[in-house]
Amino acid sequence: MARQVVHQDGRHAVALGELRELLGDRLSEAMSVRDHHGHGEGHHGHSPPPDAVAFAQSTDEVSAIMRICHRHDMPVIPFGTGTSLEGHVEALFGGLSLDVSGMNRVVEVSPGDLDCLVEAGVTRKQLNSDLRDLGLFFPVDPGADASIGGMAATRASGTNAVRYGTMRESVLGLTVVLADGRIIRTGGRARKSSAGYDLTRLFIGSEGTLGIITEIRLRLFGIPEEISSAVCAFPSIEAAVDTVIETIQIGIPVARIELLDPIQMRACIEYSKLQDMEEVPTLFYEFHGSAAGVREQSGAAQEIAESFGGKSFRWTTRPEDRNRLWQARHDAYFAALSMRKGCLSWPTDVCVPISRLAECIRETHADIAESGLLAPIVGHVGDGNFHVQYLLDPNDPAELEKAQFLNKRMVRRALAMGGTCTGEHGIGFGKIGSLAEEHGEGLSVMAAIKDALDPTGIMNPGKIIARKR
Amino acid sequence: MARQVVHQDGRHAVALGELRELLGDRLSEAMSVRDHHGHGEGHHGHSPPPDAVAFAQSTDEVSAIMRICHRHDMPVIPFGTGTSLEGHVEALFGGLSLDVSGMNRVVEVSPGDLDCLVEAGVTRKQLNSDLRDLGLFFPVDPGADASIGGMAATRASGTNAVRYGTMRESVLGLTVVLADGRIIRTGGRARKSSAGYDLTRLFIGSEGTLGIITEIRLRLFGIPEEISSAVCAFPSIEAAVDTVIETIQIGIPVARIELLDPIQMRACIEYSKLQDMEEVPTLFYEFHGSAAGVREQSGAAQEIAESFGGKSFRWTTRPEDRNRLWQARHDAYFAALSMRKGCLSWPTDVCVPISRLAECIRETHADIAESGLLAPIVGHVGDGNFHVQYLLDPNDPAELEKAQFLNKRMVRRALAMGGTCTGEHGIGFGKIGSLAEEHGEGLSVMAAIKDALDPTGIMNPGKIIARKR
Repeated sequence: MARQVVHQDGRHAVALGELRELLGDRLSEAMSVRDHHGHGEGHHGHSPPPDAVAFAQSTDEVSAIMRICHRHDMPVIPFGTGTSLEGHVEALFGGLSLDVSGMNRVVEVSPGDLDCLVEAGVTRKQLNSDLRDLGLFFPVDPGADASIGGMAATRASGTNAVRYGTMRESVLGLTVVLADGRIIRTGGRARKSSAGYDLTRLFIGSEGTLGIITEIRLRLFGIPEEISSAVCAFPSIEAAVDTVIETIQIGIPVARIELLDPIQMRACIEYSKLQDMEEVPTLFYEFHGSAAGVREQSGAAQEIAESFGGKSFRWTTRPEDRNRLWQARHDAYFAALSMRKGCLSWPTDVCVPISRLAECIRETHADIAESGLLAPIVGHVGDGNFHVQYLLDPNDPAELEKAQFLNKRMVRRALAMGGTCTGEHGIGFGKIGSLAEEHGEGLSVMAAIKDALDPTGIMNPGKIIARKR
Repeated sequence: MARQVVHQDGRHAVALGELRELLGDRLSEAMSVRDHHGHGEGHHGHSPPPDAVAFAQSTDEVSAIMRICHRHDMPVIPFGTGTSLEGHVEALFGGLSLDVSGMNRVVEVSPGDLDCLVEAGVTRKQLNSDLRDLGLFFPVDPGADASIGGMAATRASGTNAVRYGTMRESVLGLTVVLADGRIIRTGGRARKSSAGYDLTRLFIGSEGTLGIITEIRLRLFGIPEEISSAVCAFPSIEAAVDTVIETIQIGIPVARIELLDPIQMRACIEYSKLQDMEEVPTLFYEFHGSAAGVREQSGAAQEIAESFGGKSFRWTTRPEDRNRLWQARHDAYFAALSMRKGCLSWPTDVCVPISRLAECIRETHADIAESGLLAPIVGHVGDGNFHVQYLLDPNDPAELEKAQFLNKRMVRRALAMGGTCTGEHGIGFGKIGSLAEEHGEGLSVMAAIKDALDPTGIMNPGKIIARKR
């Protein structure tokens, strides 16, 4: 690792001096703060921490920070809540962690336009709590209470995406600070535009490698008049997935449709006390609409489920029942962790065309079974997206090696099916090899854009685009 | 114009020789063919025609053409059906018009995945006719029977966008030939992905300035079980627009909601024999869903319309009535033209946050009334998007000047309201000044991307990014 060298670089000492002058005690070099900012969640996190952490409070301040770092060639790694999974926030080449969590103002909400403007550090739960009294909500829900800036930067999605889209569809515009400190505003408040290149979509999913997202204008939705949920057990993964395909295909506008495999169900039954459920492939549904609408949706969904052998389809509009179900789904990650105390958790995801989903999960299951590893599967199946969470013995390198091997096989399987190496976790540095496999020559176009926007390579170096400094 | 100089350039003579060898009689230098390819629709079209037209039949052939043109520094202007409105296909610096209309195969349709792969020259009507027997449809409908490649390149949308999104949301992936002939494939078949920069969205709306789109993978939808339409007359534009805002805000999933102003209604009543309608602000609706669903949607929409003074709300599920209504809407352009025989038609559009729409249309109306020009207004109001169609005397430069002045005022008005200078027509060269006003410093980022992907500037030069060759 180059960090020690970088840290001792005279130019960086000068940069840190200037940053100290700019930020006062909002520049921290305390080891505990640096350590906290040196890793996300997941199985990465072995890099040395960043050299310092800057706590920015405004776009102008981010711009001033970038001007200093640009002048002194100091890497900058944006940081929201630290919930990313593929090493996105690690300081692979040292440098400054730029923490935007203090930029947490909901600047403006326009109920008439169903949009709002937030600073990058606002978390999704904070936003939804602000919106509730207005009868509005922001649907993108990746599970973690991530920052909106981080969610935009990783193109996050989650359980509601099948109905409401991902961050790609949810962002109207961005304020971005470029590598040299210039500030641009992309998009606007119009619902659509044909005015030039789609810079908004370019920065969404760019993981801090092209610029720092400091403000986000989001689409909002009215809280539905009625919300109902349902749960259904299936004799096989195929039966569950076939149910999903038909549900989507006939146009039932499900708000959520989630698959939990038998191992994940075992974990959830134990962790969330779902004794009325079975250790079999299970779909969790949520329907949004009018009272009549959700009844109609649930009825149609039940008919399809039963035609594929689904049994004990139960639906409810009672908030306490809904909350119990979806709390269990949200706790699936922790439920899995509790299956193996002290384990190293490695969550990974792929996304495939839905027609290949059952096959992709079945083959992945077979791999896991053969390996002897413990790895429950949960899927945002309406999108063809599923997650494997490897629960590994941290003291057994052989288990990590097996997981690496299986992960690579799963990615190749997904790519061979026309899918992608990650549906929502992103690349960071953990999937940089997979990105090359997926995009081939397209990667050279990504690299050309990276060079054009960040010619000195200070923006979150080593993420998405592999490079040496 | 530089065309004559360019045409006589020895390098271009060599390029044309090589192209002739590659394409045989699919390279045309006939003046009638060149003239046809030298302009789109709308009020532009004064540039000299391209030096030649190449009729490509495959991605590999487009690649071979680009390699030749790249080697000899020859501009290339992609051409689909020639229905663009802002001079997108004009050969401002001479060069080759690359016609992809012969690439018109629907390569693959996957009903299970609700997607398909088409070549760039497939038109939307051709595609929908192919899909009908499968119970599927492709919703993006800009009015003209444009090519899917052209629609992707201009980020087209139209009447269905309020429910189904624009080309931005409808494309899963692209095959693109770059300036130097390299072929890349962006996106994939997965519904979502966090794998690297969103090159798909970068090429959508890039108007041929970054590469040639040769194949498009599209999202499809099941034809709804029931389709109903409705029409309602309003006492004012404000009343109609307030109805739209509330309809969208409470979440009625209208498939189409279109505003026609009194002048446009006069044209349509005459042209499409709608004698049962009045020359007042009118909303045309379409609802998609189950039989019960569309009944519920229509009922809720009617209630809102009536609360804002809407009268004679009529809804129907009879196909002949629906077709009559929507045929009239589709013919609005021609209906307007028929108001002034032999006129020069200049269609322009802006898009604003919906809360500002009534104000934007009212002020634009006032401008038009004061100018004495004839210019009906039609709006995809669910998106905040509206069109003004100036009907000008081609022999009266004063009218053109007035329209230019009003158009600039309208664009500035839209920008001041947080809107965009074009919701769906694109920039071409007609709105290049407006783009700079809208995006400011962001334009330098667009220019940097253009330079990175097309360093010699041969891709549709002078569109989106102003430049001299």
